[in-house]
Amino acid sequence: MKGKFIVLEGPDRCGKSTQAKMLYNQLVARGKDVILTREPGGTPTAERIRQIVLEPGLDVRPLAELLLYEASRAQHTQEKILPALEEGKIVLCERYTMSTCAYQGYGRGIPLETIDTLNQIATHGNRPDLTLVFLMSDKYFTQRGEYLFSDRLEQEDLAFRQKMRKGYLDMIERTPNAYLIDADKNISDIQSRVLELLKEHQIID
Amino acid sequence: MKGKFIVLEGPDRCGKSTQAKMLYNQLVARGKDVILTREPGGTPTAERIRQIVLEPGLDVRPLAELLLYEASRAQHTQEKILPALEEGKIVLCERYTMSTCAYQGYGRGIPLETIDTLNQIATHGNRPDLTLVFLMSDKYFTQRGEYLFSDRLEQEDLAFRQKMRKGYLDMIERTPNAYLIDADKNISDIQSRVLELLKEHQIID
Repeated sequence: MKGKFIVLEGPDRCGKSTQAKMLYNQLVARGKDVILTREPGGTPTAERIRQIVLEPGLDVRPLAELLLYEASRAQHTQEKILPALEEGKIVLCERYTMSTCAYQGYGRGIPLETIDTLNQIATHGNRPDLTLVFLMSDKYFTQRGEYLFSDRLEQEDLAFRQKMRKGYLDMIERTPNAYLIDADKNISDIQSRVLELLKEHQIID
Repeated sequence: MKGKFIVLEGPDRCGKSTQAKMLYNQLVARGKDVILTREPGGTPTAERIRQIVLEPGLDVRPLAELLLYEASRAQHTQEKILPALEEGKIVLCERYTMSTCAYQGYGRGIPLETIDTLNQIATHGNRPDLTLVFLMSDKYFTQRGEYLFSDRLEQEDLAFRQKMRKGYLDMIERTPNAYLIDADKNISDIQSRVLELLKEHQIID
């Protein structure tokens, strides 16, 4: 692969979309060939799958939910991510395999071994060159409560978020090139830390 | 499991829907508690997934297609099939794991080992008590050509059908309680053979 695959992970409302857009603009300003994408979704078919997963009130069992995320990932990886990396692009992606382990594994209790098997199949073995994991303390999370509780996953409770948080911390420990980003900090401090990590990994000068 | 799980497999236009309905009516007439269902689909969520898989013109890569079928299967199995079997019902299902091996494995070339892994996950280990595989010769298939070519899967060519046919024959050999039904025969002869097999397996007297 000639390009670089950068994944932004973390729970809802951790600020990763804001940082993804800022990073995208920074990279474009530096003359980089970059695309910004997200999961679930990222292609027309994957967005259709996303609609099913996030529709309020629809009966979606944990295992079916997991398989839908993996179907979205397989389509997105093959249709969009791998071709962009082969063309030498930087691919910024909001959520990837780590989110699935956090939500469906640590959160919903599906064995991590099952999820790892499915992730391996759906990604075609594609792994991030850099994973940025945005985590904030619960105090900050609830302060952003003006956010609308718009979908099923958003309605999960505090205990669920805490299990996921533990999951993200565990995974950072055992994933190469994965870093905790303190999302309690202000936007520009976070951006500085992100750019610093890209420099350390020689993605930018 | 107190119920009986009977799966009707085979390519499109082999007559399995007709036989499924006739068998359903026969079982109801004999006072059996029976449900008739199908894959992909069988529940509202699974039917939504089915729409994506069968939509003409939508870019669905083979691996994403496979994972969508498995998501539909996971939902259908957990929401509908397993509860019915636990209540002691006879569950008649059009298509299940063997169809996925035939289409996505023998047909599209995804390794059978990958499909077996996914089938195992999606079915929760649930296996048919009886599998009836309806196969017809190509001569009969083309004579039913008044059928509308209404979805993407229907538009596959003869070579693809022949690979699948070989797949079904291989799988009948190695699957317990799976039987080839000669779908070239007339409807009532086929129905007699189906009822005979149900008797042999002590599902009816």
